[in-house]
Amino acid sequence: MDGILKHQYTMSSNPELGLASMYRVIKKSGAERVSDEAADELRKILEEIAQQIATQALDLSIHAGRKTIKSDDIRLAAKNILKL
Amino acid sequence: MDGILKHQYTMSSNPELGLASMYRVIKKSGAERVSDEAADELRKILEEIAQQIATQALDLSIHAGRKTIKSDDIRLAAKNILKL
Repeated sequence: MDGILKHQYTMSSNPELGLASMYRVIKKSGAERVSDEAADELRKILEEIAQQIATQALDLSIHAGRKTIKSDDIRLAAKNILKL
Repeated sequence: MDGILKHQYTMSSNPELGLASMYRVIKKSGAERVSDEAADELRKILEEIAQQIATQALDLSIHAGRKTIKSDDIRLAAKNILKL
């Protein structure tokens, strides 16, 4: 799991997740104010996790002889990546 | 970490993260096809993680005597939640 924090600064160039979503999620927790850097930090972390899950889900789908990624691939990949 | 998989089915009612982003992230991994359920599954997992990080970041900001959530709060919360 070292990879997630290590790589997070290298992958913000082409973000897929919206920054507004990050503000909403953090605000929902009950926060009065959220710094721009905090929202961006959450985005970086979630993007890195998403990328790792997606990459492993692809491997799992190929392993199962499929060309379509299914929810089971995502679920198992998340379990492995996040050590759930 | 049991909580993430356990609660994921209860929290899709009001999603903050966009589904289109999930397709893009999974496609980026090199997947040929992505089922709708897979994209939704990734969204549920990321939302749950985001919510847990945000909740702990709020506690950390209060602990530090602040009313603003900063990137350090997010980073430390992610480290704790994800056992990085």
